[in-house]
Amino acid sequence: MKAIVNVALKQGVLDDQGKATHHALDTLGFKEVVKDVRIGKQIILELNSSSKEEAQAEVTKMCEKLLANTVIEDYNITITE
Amino acid sequence: MKAIVNVALKQGVLDDQGKATHHALDTLGFKEVVKDVRIGKQIILELNSSSKEEAQAEVTKMCEKLLANTVIEDYNITITE
Repeated sequence: MKAIVNVALKQGVLDDQGKATHHALDTLGFKEVVKDVRIGKQIILELNSSSKEEAQAEVTKMCEKLLANTVIEDYNITITE
Repeated sequence: MKAIVNVALKQGVLDDQGKATHHALDTLGFKEVVKDVRIGKQIILELNSSSKEEAQAEVTKMCEKLLANTVIEDYNITITE
């Protein structure tokens, strides 16, 4: 089973990396096109779980313990085959 | 219009961050559950494009020029709204 975890900074938290990328895109000629850039992490886990429910529960624990800093980040989990 | 760009290391390229995370998950008690971890970036762009086709073309240019290192990374683009 496979889990895709997207971790992004909460709304309102300064996104340095996103700001720098936005600025770089502006200087590369995309000033008119780009309104906002935000950068997060995508974590792809290969799991030995027997059911989607079990996988979801385990990955939620992993997010709370390690994968996300829940003070400043939100995460969402997608479980696929 | 919104574009979501997922950038991940190509298969075969050593994923240090993924390896370290895998190890950390093992020591936290997920040794039986986790088979593999890979970590990539998720870039969320807010765009001023008038059509999906235009947005797709612009974001492809951004990926080739800045957002991905195409020697070692793959990217995929999803346009929404």
